[in-house]
Amino acid sequence: MTDLDKIIAQRKSVRDYKDIPVEVEKIKQILEAARLAPSACNKQPWIFVVANTPKAKEEVMKFGLGEMMVSNEWAASAPVIIVVCSKKEFITHSLAEKLQGVEYHLIDIGIACQNLVLKATELGLGTCYIGWFNAKAIKKVLDLPLSYKVECLIALGYPKENNQNQTSRKSMDEISLWK
Amino acid sequence: MTDLDKIIAQRKSVRDYKDIPVEVEKIKQILEAARLAPSACNKQPWIFVVANTPKAKEEVMKFGLGEMMVSNEWAASAPVIIVVCSKKEFITHSLAEKLQGVEYHLIDIGIACQNLVLKATELGLGTCYIGWFNAKAIKKVLDLPLSYKVECLIALGYPKENNQNQTSRKSMDEISLWK
Repeated sequence: MTDLDKIIAQRKSVRDYKDIPVEVEKIKQILEAARLAPSACNKQPWIFVVANTPKAKEEVMKFGLGEMMVSNEWAASAPVIIVVCSKKEFITHSLAEKLQGVEYHLIDIGIACQNLVLKATELGLGTCYIGWFNAKAIKKVLDLPLSYKVECLIALGYPKENNQNQTSRKSMDEISLWK
Repeated sequence: MTDLDKIIAQRKSVRDYKDIPVEVEKIKQILEAARLAPSACNKQPWIFVVANTPKAKEEVMKFGLGEMMVSNEWAASAPVIIVVCSKKEFITHSLAEKLQGVEYHLIDIGIACQNLVLKATELGLGTCYIGWFNAKAIKKVLDLPLSYKVECLIALGYPKENNQNQTSRKSMDEISLWK
């Protein structure tokens, strides 16, 4: 197995974190991996909002994740929440979407987030994608510009040792087809 | 720089390929990286259709990429086209989309594709995401089930040595915000 194979295999959704902060230098390395990601027409339609001060993190937790249908309480233990936003451009995104029927900027967001998550894994950090949140409340408490749309959140921190969240995967035959 | 840093930095959109096939074993390794990717509610809403026979590749090229507004003629040199399809589920995808306003399955597709692309890069292969295509024609020539939706294509092959497509990236300040 190569280092990349190991990182891809090791990445698990971590929902229980140690009560220690993440070094700013490491967060910067993680963002750098995302920054280099490819995107449709190289538009890089992403903004990564790092909520790593206790105040910002707690407000995102309280107002953005607190009262959802799906419980996100575990996220309170994460020292950092990365709020992943998109900023769409008319021709590449809105117009292309209409013509092709695919919201490319979301594929781009996934691509960049995965670079970020893999780099975090390499640095010994745990992550978890969060898809249920109150986007309006998060924009308000973080005072984000109107043009930003919150697309997903990523919890970040040092995982507790006992964190061995294992999930199954479909077989290769179920996810591939040769022509 | 770690191996992962190098792979992330080395990955470029390759639009000119050598006229040699890609080993099936390597394609399988690439698909394995995608297979292990995380997804919303672990739904793994992806199917990777590998067009690697000359007939399939040429038909995708001719009918799926031939007459688009944006020129994709360069793709004719790629020995393999991976047709990335989604298969949505009602609760996780259609219902969640309505409630949250985010098409999660597209973020998932981006995540899995990036695992795939990084693994290809590690194996010395070139890739290029393709967003403009005739989805209906591709489904027809590859005889894909009605439930599949073509979301993007990935060209795959050995890059010509002179392939040094360099694209710029926004600065860190432009893509990040600390709170």
